[in-house]
Formats: sequence, C-alpha cells, structure tokens
Amino acid sequence: MSTPFRTSRMVEFSDTDMAGIMHFSAFFRFMEGAEHRFLRSLGFSVFSEFGSEIITFPRVAASCEYHSPARCEQELDIDVTVRRVGTKSVTYGFAFSHQGRDVATGQMTSVCCRVRHGEAPVSIPIPDEFGNKLREQVIS
Amino acid sequence: MSTPFRTSRMVEFSDTDMAGIMHFSAFFRFMEGAEHRFLRSLGFSVFSEFGSEIITFPRVAASCEYHSPARCEQELDIDVTVRRVGTKSVTYGFAFSHQGRDVATGQMTSVCCRVRHGEAPVSIPIPDEFGNKLREQVIS
Amino acid sequence: MSTPFRTSRMVEFSDTDMAGIMHFSAFFRFMEGAEHRFLRSLGFSVFSEFGSEIITFPRVAASCEYHSPARCEQELDIDVTVRRVGTKSVTYGFAFSHQGRDVATGQMTSVCCRVRHGEAPVSIPIPDEFGNKLREQVIS
Amino acid sequence: MSTPFRTSRMVEFSDTDMAGIMHFSAFFRFMEGAEHRFLRSLGFSVFSEFGSEIITFPRVAASCEYHSPARCEQELDIDVTVRRVGTKSVTYGFAFSHQGRDVATGQMTSVCCRVRHGEAPVSIPIPDEFGNKLREQVIS
Repeated sequence: MSTPFRTSRMVEFSDTDMAGIMHFSAFFRFMEGAEHRFLRSLGFSVFSEFGSEIITFPRVAASCEYHSPARCEQELDIDVTVRRVGTKSVTYGFAFSHQGRDVATGQMTSVCCRVRHGEAPVSIPIPDEFGNKLREQVIS
Repeated sequence: MSTPFRTSRMVEFSDTDMAGIMHFSAFFRFMEGAEHRFLRSLGFSVFSEFGSEIITFPRVAASCEYHSPARCEQELDIDVTVRRVGTKSVTYGFAFSHQGRDVATGQMTSVCCRVRHGEAPVSIPIPDEFGNKLREQVIS
Repeated sequence: MSTPFRTSRMVEFSDTDMAGIMHFSAFFRFMEGAEHRFLRSLGFSVFSEFGSEIITFPRVAASCEYHSPARCEQELDIDVTVRRVGTKSVTYGFAFSHQGRDVATGQMTSVCCRVRHGEAPVSIPIPDEFGNKLREQVIS
Repeated sequence: MSTPFRTSRMVEFSDTDMAGIMHFSAFFRFMEGAEHRFLRSLGFSVFSEFGSEIITFPRVAASCEYHSPARCEQELDIDVTVRRVGTKSVTYGFAFSHQGRDVATGQMTSVCCRVRHGEAPVSIPIPDEFGNKLREQVIS
C-alpha cells in the first residue's frame, strides 16, 4: 500500500488552553481518534467485549513533536501510517497538518491485550485476521 | 451536621481555555473529584468492584452556575453538602470560591447502580450502611 | 423556524470512563461543540479576536439530565435549539439521542463578553447582526 | 543536586477509560501538573502575563512509556528531574510509580516563548534568573 489513511478533525474551543492554542495533550486524543477511525475503515472496532472480557490495545509508548501551533476552528488533516506490526504490538505514525502547514508528528505503539476488570491487562498475540490486514497497510 | 465538607483544588494550565479562564466543563470534573474525596472521608470508595460487577453512582443530573472566572494556579475552595438522600439517589451541592470570592455553585444527583460491562446500568437501593451515613450529613 | 439544528458526533474511547460509558462531563464538551457548529452554520465564529481582545460567550449556566448511557463508537445525534435570546445572553437547548433512543437533554446560557487577558470578562450587548439572526432561530 | 523533585497525585474517576485504567493521554496532563508544581517550588509560575503578552513554555516534544496500569484512587508518585537546560529549551524527565511499582516514564521538552494572542509563539532565550535556577537542578 502506498498512501496513508487520511482523516481530519476540527480543533474545538475545549481543546485550547490559555496560550490560545491547542493543548499539547489533546494531540494524543486526536491520535487515538484517528487510529480508531483507521481501524473501523478496516472493519475492526477499537475493542471487542466478550462478556466481562475486553480485547483492546493499550499503549506501551506514545510520543509527539510539535512544529507549529493549532488554533481553534482549524481543520487538521491527520495522516495515519502503520509503521510496524509485531506479534503482539503495532506501531502507528501520525502527521498533523493544516492546509499543508506541518503542525505535528506523532507515534504510538499499542499492545494487543485481554482486559478483565480489576485485573492487569494481559498481552496476547494479535489475532491473525487483524494482524494480516494491518501488515498489508505497512508503507515500505 | 452543621458544616459542609471542604476540600480545595488548584486550577491547572490544562483546565484553562483560550479565553484565559477555567473551561466551564472542568467544573464538573472538579465536582466529581470533590464528591469522591467526600465519600472517602466517610470511608467509602467511588465504586466497588465485585468480579466483573461495579457498584457505582452514575449521574442523572448535573448543573452549574458560573459567577466569576477561575484562573490558572488559583486554589479553589469547594464546599460539598448533601442536599437530599432518597432510596436510590443522592443529591449534592457544591460551592466554589477563591479567597472568599464566589466563583460558581453546582449540583449533582447520582443514582446507585450496579454496572455490568456491556449492559445498561441497573439502579438499586442505596445500601443501608452507606445511605445512613449520607443522611447524617444532610444539612438542615 | 420550525426544526432544530441537528449535528452528530461519535463517542470516542477517550470520552468513556471505567463504568464503560461516556463520562458525564463529556456531554458538556459535546454541547459546546454542537453550539459552535450551529453558530458556524449561521456564519458566526465561536469568538472573534480584535488585537488582544476577544468577543466570546462564556457560560453563566449549564445543566444536563442523563436518561440512558452513551457507549464508545455510538454516533449521537444532537439537536440544538435556541430557547431564548436576551439583550446580553442566549439560552440553548440540546437533545442527545442514539438511533432514536433518548440519551440526555441539556441547556446552556451564555453571555456575550469582551475578554481582555488578565482581566475579568465584561458583559456587553449581543451585536445586532448576531442577535437578530439568533432570534430568527427561536422555536416557538 | 542529587534527588529529584517528588510530588504525588491521585488517579480520579474522570482520568479512567472503559478499559478500567487511567487513560494514556492523562499522563501528559499529570506531567504538566508536576512540572508546574516543580516550577512553583523554585519560585516561578507556569506563565507570566505582561499586558496581552504571555511568557510561557509550549512543548516541542512529549513522550511516555507505559509499564503497568494506574487505577482509580491510586496515589501516584511523580519524580521530576531536569535533564537538560539549553539556551531556549528545557527537558524534564518524569517517573510515575505506585507504592514502589513502576507505572510509567515520560519526557517533555519545552521552549521558552513569548505568546501574543492571535500570533504564533516566538521562542526567546530563557531569562537568566530562571535558567540558572533550572541548571542547578540538573542531576548529573
């Protein structure tokens, strides 16, 4: 596959802080939202509940570099790429831009986990159906 | 009982918006935090997990009136009062102030519920031990 | 005018809490987002900056009643109505539903204000052009 | 200086998500809050307003690695260290733990900026008084 998955999202008033720009932590919510839209575009949900058990992808690492400010009511383009798919983990890259201006780049690594409430998440191999579809999306 | 439960909390940078003041939605998080500190002061937790089941208090109503702005790094005093304890619900009042200046007042009504994941919460009578302790706190 | 302004928004993972449903405070962010989309549909912005001065609409009151839970990845319909337009304030009503199921109703009253940073917001009459357009939207 | 600055903070209900643990983006708000407490311990504020101008420290980079889950009502210890102080930027390290259990580690790099509303932040050299005090805190 040669092009990233592109989605977009408007910066809302509640995403801003008193410096007049989008708060740096809001970029992580935007990354997660973009990741989930990407997963839905592949036919997957962000989690699957089986009775009291949830299969989900908690993050083991997240990072962001900020290049220029994002302001209220600006529509950000977010390009999602799959960087690496391991046995249990997947790493995504994110590029934020506004009308072609570079705003930020980010990365998240998530691990496939079975979560039972009140217990620590247990990492498990990514189910084949899901892992194979993700591997097709890796941009090389 | 004649005095409300008082707690305090500093307005953080991430609580502000581009108007330079604490975002109106942040008051609801502050109310919830104050409610939970109040419950802990009575020896209760905000929720109790029994296997996959949680006893918790989702809100059926929440409101806030804003009287003057709260700014970053201001320490807000929050007075919590128990207004009414019904069979299944409890109503709290909140008064926010900063160094004696009235900032906001709020109210929340919560219903005692059993939550199983993937199912709708089911309202249940407030357990006696808990309800009786709350009733002692009602300010008349 | 006879029909409310309708917008929709998906509940995201970051909007949920450990009870497995959308956190009650997130409804207020959703209301604000819907209000701003409504204002943009009328040709207005959520704020106007003139040098260091901002004309904006801080809330004087906000409330919400919760009727049934909203869950992750559910698309909520949000109907916005203008309930009342005063000289300096405007009151909006909000109705949240999911596939016809009633989820929540809310209300917000905002006051037109001039904000200079570091100073308290000062209420001012709603500019005519804006106030008149809002009055046309009142559903009677 | 040989010991990091330690602060602590309780995980609140509103910090959790439907997986039953603290949401990964909340760690960034916690880092910022800890950074600001650290700055206040040195006699500095998170920002300084001069008329319509703000001196503040927007982030150019932020990252976090998650080692074990943080749950509602757990009191997290947060150790703040100054890793590097440049002419215009400062890099902090953060270590989150709960009763000695490693929860997460993070890093943030902030750049000293003058912010005028409606304009892009302009980076400026860290004022000497502030920079020198920060340099004394670098753990070598």
